[in-house]
Amino acid sequence: MPQRRRKEGKENMIKVGIIGSTGYAGQELVRILLGHKDAEIVWYGSRSYIDKRYADVYRNMFELVDAACMDDNMEELSKRADVIFTATPQGFLASAVSEDILGRSRIIDLSADFRIKDVAVYEKWYNMEHKSPQFIKEAVYGLCEVNREKIKDARLIANPGCYPTCSVLSVYPLVKEGYLDLSTLIIDAKSGTSGAGRGAKVDNLYCEVNENIKAYGVTTHRHTPEIEEQLSIAAGSPVILSFTPHLVPMNRGILVTAYASLSKRADYEELKAVYDHYYAGERFVRVLERNICPETRFVEGSNYVDVNFRIDERTNRVVMMGAMDNLVKGAAGQAVQNMNLMFGLPECEGLELVPMVP
Amino acid sequence: MPQRRRKEGKENMIKVGIIGSTGYAGQELVRILLGHKDAEIVWYGSRSYIDKRYADVYRNMFELVDAACMDDNMEELSKRADVIFTATPQGFLASAVSEDILGRSRIIDLSADFRIKDVAVYEKWYNMEHKSPQFIKEAVYGLCEVNREKIKDARLIANPGCYPTCSVLSVYPLVKEGYLDLSTLIIDAKSGTSGAGRGAKVDNLYCEVNENIKAYGVTTHRHTPEIEEQLSIAAGSPVILSFTPHLVPMNRGILVTAYASLSKRADYEELKAVYDHYYAGERFVRVLERNICPETRFVEGSNYVDVNFRIDERTNRVVMMGAMDNLVKGAAGQAVQNMNLMFGLPECEGLELVPMVP
Amino acid sequence: MPQRRRKEGKENMIKVGIIGSTGYAGQELVRILLGHKDAEIVWYGSRSYIDKRYADVYRNMFELVDAACMDDNMEELSKRADVIFTATPQGFLASAVSEDILGRSRIIDLSADFRIKDVAVYEKWYNMEHKSPQFIKEAVYGLCEVNREKIKDARLIANPGCYPTCSVLSVYPLVKEGYLDLSTLIIDAKSGTSGAGRGAKVDNLYCEVNENIKAYGVTTHRHTPEIEEQLSIAAGSPVILSFTPHLVPMNRGILVTAYASLSKRADYEELKAVYDHYYAGERFVRVLERNICPETRFVEGSNYVDVNFRIDERTNRVVMMGAMDNLVKGAAGQAVQNMNLMFGLPECEGLELVPMVP
Amino acid sequence: MPQRRRKEGKENMIKVGIIGSTGYAGQELVRILLGHKDAEIVWYGSRSYIDKRYADVYRNMFELVDAACMDDNMEELSKRADVIFTATPQGFLASAVSEDILGRSRIIDLSADFRIKDVAVYEKWYNMEHKSPQFIKEAVYGLCEVNREKIKDARLIANPGCYPTCSVLSVYPLVKEGYLDLSTLIIDAKSGTSGAGRGAKVDNLYCEVNENIKAYGVTTHRHTPEIEEQLSIAAGSPVILSFTPHLVPMNRGILVTAYASLSKRADYEELKAVYDHYYAGERFVRVLERNICPETRFVEGSNYVDVNFRIDERTNRVVMMGAMDNLVKGAAGQAVQNMNLMFGLPECEGLELVPMVP
Repeated sequence: MPQRRRKEGKENMIKVGIIGSTGYAGQELVRILLGHKDAEIVWYGSRSYIDKRYADVYRNMFELVDAACMDDNMEELSKRADVIFTATPQGFLASAVSEDILGRSRIIDLSADFRIKDVAVYEKWYNMEHKSPQFIKEAVYGLCEVNREKIKDARLIANPGCYPTCSVLSVYPLVKEGYLDLSTLIIDAKSGTSGAGRGAKVDNLYCEVNENIKAYGVTTHRHTPEIEEQLSIAAGSPVILSFTPHLVPMNRGILVTAYASLSKRADYEELKAVYDHYYAGERFVRVLERNICPETRFVEGSNYVDVNFRIDERTNRVVMMGAMDNLVKGAAGQAVQNMNLMFGLPECEGLELVPMVP
Repeated sequence: MPQRRRKEGKENMIKVGIIGSTGYAGQELVRILLGHKDAEIVWYGSRSYIDKRYADVYRNMFELVDAACMDDNMEELSKRADVIFTATPQGFLASAVSEDILGRSRIIDLSADFRIKDVAVYEKWYNMEHKSPQFIKEAVYGLCEVNREKIKDARLIANPGCYPTCSVLSVYPLVKEGYLDLSTLIIDAKSGTSGAGRGAKVDNLYCEVNENIKAYGVTTHRHTPEIEEQLSIAAGSPVILSFTPHLVPMNRGILVTAYASLSKRADYEELKAVYDHYYAGERFVRVLERNICPETRFVEGSNYVDVNFRIDERTNRVVMMGAMDNLVKGAAGQAVQNMNLMFGLPECEGLELVPMVP
Repeated sequence: MPQRRRKEGKENMIKVGIIGSTGYAGQELVRILLGHKDAEIVWYGSRSYIDKRYADVYRNMFELVDAACMDDNMEELSKRADVIFTATPQGFLASAVSEDILGRSRIIDLSADFRIKDVAVYEKWYNMEHKSPQFIKEAVYGLCEVNREKIKDARLIANPGCYPTCSVLSVYPLVKEGYLDLSTLIIDAKSGTSGAGRGAKVDNLYCEVNENIKAYGVTTHRHTPEIEEQLSIAAGSPVILSFTPHLVPMNRGILVTAYASLSKRADYEELKAVYDHYYAGERFVRVLERNICPETRFVEGSNYVDVNFRIDERTNRVVMMGAMDNLVKGAAGQAVQNMNLMFGLPECEGLELVPMVP
Repeated sequence: MPQRRRKEGKENMIKVGIIGSTGYAGQELVRILLGHKDAEIVWYGSRSYIDKRYADVYRNMFELVDAACMDDNMEELSKRADVIFTATPQGFLASAVSEDILGRSRIIDLSADFRIKDVAVYEKWYNMEHKSPQFIKEAVYGLCEVNREKIKDARLIANPGCYPTCSVLSVYPLVKEGYLDLSTLIIDAKSGTSGAGRGAKVDNLYCEVNENIKAYGVTTHRHTPEIEEQLSIAAGSPVILSFTPHLVPMNRGILVTAYASLSKRADYEELKAVYDHYYAGERFVRVLERNICPETRFVEGSNYVDVNFRIDERTNRVVMMGAMDNLVKGAAGQAVQNMNLMFGLPECEGLELVPMVP
């Protein structure tokens, strides 16, 4: 019973620690958790801003958060928190996690450390040695719509990457039901700039990003093997695909446009029924109506993924699309969704965020 | 007792009608009220989209709002709603309001029809005849921080304009306490583009607004007399000022930079104490710390106004600044704040929106 | 000898008429031609702004253009101009052109009226009857890099569409040389908002476009058959492909990301040599260096198309990319390039525009 | 005769060296000078990118600039160049300049080192010791419209700051002719983000600047004393004013909104005549027509300053406005204008840039 694991505290709140709380995903965790009635943040970890008031880093939090930033001492934190979110660079959690820590706190990792089951694949694409391969098998890939039951009992959640979340959910029903010739699958993705993080790099300056679009990581982006692994599991056979991300001049949002040849003839109604079968009961996946294309603005600030598809009879392809807020469903929102599942709360607690337009 | 006036319905919710629900301010009302636990929207009025599903106009509302748009029949609406929000063009409510309607429903008007007490001033600046001058006296100017008590009992609220809300709150304490030479007051304001509305005009096209800043309505903007009237009341003597709005390439946000000569010597601590005196108990006005300038991004999506000031000893002027989301505190949020006051609810019900960054 | 056809006037300048001069492409023609030393605009046609000063529509032209807007009388215009640019809606030129007009003036049409050789294809995709099919055969598709010689003697130029220009030039060398399995060709394109035109539509308002990305015209966009026809000519066999455009929150720029399976093994050096073979002598096509991805900001304001490709050995695909300013090389710049060819001028006259960063 | 001072080279071109060529202003110099028919860049100085190809830093320059970046050795550079542009941090040129260098090359300094005549004022506002006060007197403030004759013979030009250029030109005629009560002068300025430079700072990241407006440097911005000094010269008496800059989410552009009380009654025609008197012959200052407000988009990419004013009879104030591209007239364009004057060339050579819209 997860609830029993909660630390002592006022009103039996879930005690939450965040490592990396001053990155964009970390701050989004704070934003969401401030509206979560069963959770309380007890540790605002930020290596770069130790002892600085959190509200001096993010002034939107003035009068909302009084705490100062803490270090990333996982040992100590695990004694105080029921759950730890690590919104950290690759490799941090793999270096810091231990059986002791996992014995005291559940961990939801927003980095890629435990997403990929094949450690060799991880080490090749991320170009670093994995420091804790012994926990990979236990870690549950936290895509709630797919792995809901496993998540409930997990100690260690690998929160999915932003592109993989949107990519997998956009194509999952048709992959799972065998409608696609998987050798033809191509995913062309577009992301807002918050996905690039808050590091002070010339490439991410306003004047370098604004009024521009570019592809990056072409054929080499690290989210490729993560998408492939998840779709291979869904398909029951290995999937190799093309994935190309692009940087778009906007703060938030990911749009996925995926292409594949149909492996069998199917009309709109048939494919729509497949999508509805998988997602009709899902609170956070909206299957749009016929001919409506997902747009990132219609999910901004919310935990929704909007998906749809269109059959191209001329080419026998289906074009599958998905739109999502990369910081919410693609990071912090999904992490809280995982937390809710792990602690026996309603899955949408704290996540009933209406998309903000304009 | 306002609560008694609620129409029959499930769970004793406040029944809300919105006229002009498909404009940006109207839609923001919908966004906020969907998260309000004591209110229920029963009428999505939109003259342009009658019978069209609301979620087909604003796709962010897919699966959140099932209703279709209704007309602007205030007679009928007043029989179904406890409160009516009119987010309509100038002149609509003045033409539509009646004693009968006000006898059945309270009205919160987001237009300018009842903001200005001197009907001659209204008719001159708005260049139209006022169709219901008999209700002007009764109408309460809904700036909650100033008129809280009167709002509670009002039947008709004139919800303040976006620029006036930010302008008045930025300078109010120093005006009220007589620190400013009011003949020197200049307000230079900057607004995001949602303030220009959702009308299909060439001037508001993406490519006309993007990568540009301009002043508009110089010396003639209609919010000038509204600001002057409110500050005259605060000062106890007539205030004539310069007000210049600018259009900024962003969706949301108003920033006010106001200048005035000090009428008496004062240091930072003294003026800070004045601001704190007026706003320390205010949930939605944040007086920033020394030397911190308000920024619109730190209030985006929330009902906050962030204010601060800086003394310029070289010129003996004080520069007062305020930042606000024009659609929330400048329109829909303040309207809901008024509703909360009118119906005896906690003032911040439905408005505990954490500013969304980035 | 084209030069002989010039109308009388000061300094033997080419007399230019523009129909549709107040659209974004029309105005870009004005911007470019003001810097062209051998051309002079004698007719600023604009049905919407007849008799209004051009500089009152586009205030950047204050003190640069004194003329008032004229109607779209092609008969009269053809008596005054050596060349007419029609930057008009579909169907205008097909309705207006005649042998008489073409006998007096050359025409460069920026609409789609004469781009597609198969009139049945045109009528199907554009959903309108073609009013002048008799001129389709004569019209030359004005993609300078491909049809340079034919352009020189043409009376009627079909200036290529923005997406087709960028798409075709990005993949042309590999298509022409048979490196691609053309049944696998997918083009995912992204455009700035000026491509949507200057019409007053809600969908193109700042607040609807900003902070958003979406696909549109999925499987149905009218540029699809134009791209297919040009690539079919290059390949020597019919090409059917998937083309998906997206709307990006920026003023200018098109980025194309194209995917195809290699039909034969080839390494980087081999494919690079193919691109260089076709483009080494081309002033306005830049084949970027290895692993450098095209970005729209690096061509903004200029007539360049930047292209590159990357081989994905895992999938045996090649990813081909191109970036271009949709208003220059995708419209007005290419139109002037065509004019230069037609009048025996240096191809880059008036087009030596250095891309403007940032 | 300046022309005589040109170094040997092909076609008697002016040899230009740029220190700081990889900043935004430095790169804009490159963009402009590539289109200048009498100048040739012989030195692309960039401390950060020594030996890196310039076109690898700014890929818009691919195939346009072959050179690699050089260091900032002014001694050596002065032997090769007729004129040196220093687009460098404060203090660089004051540390590097010498009589020897000035004996060989003219210098146009885009930093603030030699803009302020009173060295004590400089040292106070810039908080650094001035290393070469002996050259301050000789340096000519390079505001061409005001100091044209002195510029022609100068060895050392202090190219005006971006805010001061726009501020001074917006108010100059009325200051000079005594129409303003200078004790009431307030300048509220708004700038695009390229003015913040290309340094890798968190504050300038896309996600920190986008969808935001803020004031900064309130009462303390370093351009204040520069504006005051220039206006004091114009007025013939000391001017102390309020200057507040704001950061706007756009790449380029400065808008100035200035307020002052009229010191004598005057109507529109009278003040318009004053502006026309000063600017009618000025190629790069456009006095707009009645009631037209300057907008930054209408000068983008060009060397224009658009100015206008509006009298507010209610307050007896005049609101003066100016719009300018901060990188052109506010930096590189004005620097080239100075170069043209210094070398006896037509003042607009290389600067006939038509503003780019949209």
